Amino acid sequence: MIVDFHTHIVPDAFPATGGAEVLWPSMKHHGDGRADVMIAGKVYRKIDERSWAVAPRMVDMDRDGIDVQVLSPMPELLSYWFSPEDGGVICDAVNGHINAMVADAPTRFRGIGMVPMQDPKLAATHLKKLHDSGMIGALIGSHIEGLPLGDASLDPFYQTAQDLGMLVMVHAMHPAGMDRVGGPAGLAGTVAFPLETALAASSLIVGGVMERFSDLKLMLCHGGGALMSLLPRLDFAWHKGMSIASAVSVPPSEIARRFFFDSIVYSDDSLNTLIDRVGGDRVVMGTDYPFAIMQTDPVNFISGASAGHAPAILAGTPFDLARKTRI
Amino acid sequence: MIVDFHTHIVPDAFPATGGAEVLWPSMKHHGDGRADVMIAGKVYRKIDERSWAVAPRMVDMDRDGIDVQVLSPMPELLSYWFSPEDGGVICDAVNGHINAMVADAPTRFRGIGMVPMQDPKLAATHLKKLHDSGMIGALIGSHIEGLPLGDASLDPFYQTAQDLGMLVMVHAMHPAGMDRVGGPAGLAGTVAFPLETALAASSLIVGGVMERFSDLKLMLCHGGGALMSLLPRLDFAWHKGMSIASAVSVPPSEIARRFFFDSIVYSDDSLNTLIDRVGGDRVVMGTDYPFAIMQTDPVNFISGASAGHAPAILAGTPFDLARKTRI
Repeated sequence: MIVDFHTHIVPDAFPATGGAEVLWPSMKHHGDGRADVMIAGKVYRKIDERSWAVAPRMVDMDRDGIDVQVLSPMPELLSYWFSPEDGGVICDAVNGHINAMVADAPTRFRGIGMVPMQDPKLAATHLKKLHDSGMIGALIGSHIEGLPLGDASLDPFYQTAQDLGMLVMVHAMHPAGMDRVGGPAGLAGTVAFPLETALAASSLIVGGVMERFSDLKLMLCHGGGALMSLLPRLDFAWHKGMSIASAVSVPPSEIARRFFFDSIVYSDDSLNTLIDRVGGDRVVMGTDYPFAIMQTDPVNFISGASAGHAPAILAGTPFDLARKTRI
Repeated sequence: MIVDFHTHIVPDAFPATGGAEVLWPSMKHHGDGRADVMIAGKVYRKIDERSWAVAPRMVDMDRDGIDVQVLSPMPELLSYWFSPEDGGVICDAVNGHINAMVADAPTRFRGIGMVPMQDPKLAATHLKKLHDSGMIGALIGSHIEGLPLGDASLDPFYQTAQDLGMLVMVHAMHPAGMDRVGGPAGLAGTVAFPLETALAASSLIVGGVMERFSDLKLMLCHGGGALMSLLPRLDFAWHKGMSIASAVSVPPSEIARRFFFDSIVYSDDSLNTLIDRVGGDRVVMGTDYPFAIMQTDPVNFISGASAGHAPAILAGTPFDLARKTRI
């Protein structure tokens, strides 16, 4: 049973907003299975029916040898920039669409939803709804409108996730530092997502989240981004007694082994570095399907690069994560 | 002849500022060889005479088996936040101190100076002065008060560096994204410097600097930071024809091989990844001496991890870089 743990969906329609939220998303359908996600009057992303319908996804899954896809929202839908109530409206719409997709083909899909993290207690309430609807976790952004993920104000959400056994999947969003890159539009996801993920992971480490919630299941997307390349420096500074030693009771690389990771790293040596540093049992296969940056031929990528760890990455750990988070 | 290419200095005194520059640095000496670098009325860093005097450095160099140190300014001295004229005053003071240190022991030290990048044409003029004084290059920050290093407005500086054969050494400074980490003060250099260096490197790549100046010698400190972990994703996006393909005429990893790198990566596998991706002849040994984060026992680190590349990293490439940039 081979699982693709990192795929995205966009519903084919959004609820109308009662207010005048300029960033409220909407869909412009072209009638041929293609559509534009419109935000602030502009095309945010060109997508097609693979984003909202299960039938074309299953064709690709069969081609790629994938038995189950875990569905999660496109990160730009996370809507932390709206009021908690308006964000909750988008959450309900997206989560409802994911649940409907899973219901269309329950042996082929599992759902990861979204919650209004701009209000951590409300997010916890929504997370309970996701759990009760059969979802296995929630996707959250790499920061909550600038609030670092290690901030203690988010603890009610982490506590509920731990209590319910719900997976927290951290995805880069609105990355820091793109003003220091320049270049053509559209580079943020390519260049800065892995760096942004490393910032979020560092916040979780120095903020003590993985120590306060030792049973929390938390996954870093894109193989943790640049985190693997940071760890030797973080450990070195920790052993030297620099400021990071005041924030973490064990070397940061030990905390890093408490995260889960997907395999979206695009090179054999990066996958091997990930496995070497965190263990093959902390990695699950992901692709970013159906977006342009998706890892192609993912099963062969895992089988070719991960030596004896392929069974865990492709099936064992995903199955454990999903099963344990089921009711 | 074994060279440590990445070490820092702080002069034992700064010129007084005529104005009211709140960030103007000053020194508070304790009389026992220790001193505080004071900025805005606070201790920015506690240092000792290793930062400004050659004698204690040579003791450590002899202990560590290092024949030559390349001296460069502590990045916080770069002073891009002052007017070009005031910045130039600091540049002259720091560069003068570096040249005096080299003159004290000319067989043991080489100098890399600093220039007022906030005015690229003035920076080019200062670079010529560094060149004429016998320095081998200039240290620049990873951004110029937010301006990305790939911005074409900096071309007069890069052009002059190329024309004079002066090395440009890029060092992280005031890194992006620390507000997304939180945690105790003092983490920026530990956590965010490698990510910041990757942002700067990405800007140089997508900004076309290494294509416009094909003979420019440019070094990324800290092994390019997280750049190595980004390259597979950048190449993947480039081959997919995503926006990065409109900015660079060859895969980004090919541009990356035009940079030089120091070896400050703290782990054998990170050093091997660096060598595998860019070639052993693009790497020189560095330490960050004499600051807390400095790589310890550097020669053994290189010898143990780099297989047949140690002679190039320790001596060959540093010698080439320094010699070719001499008059």
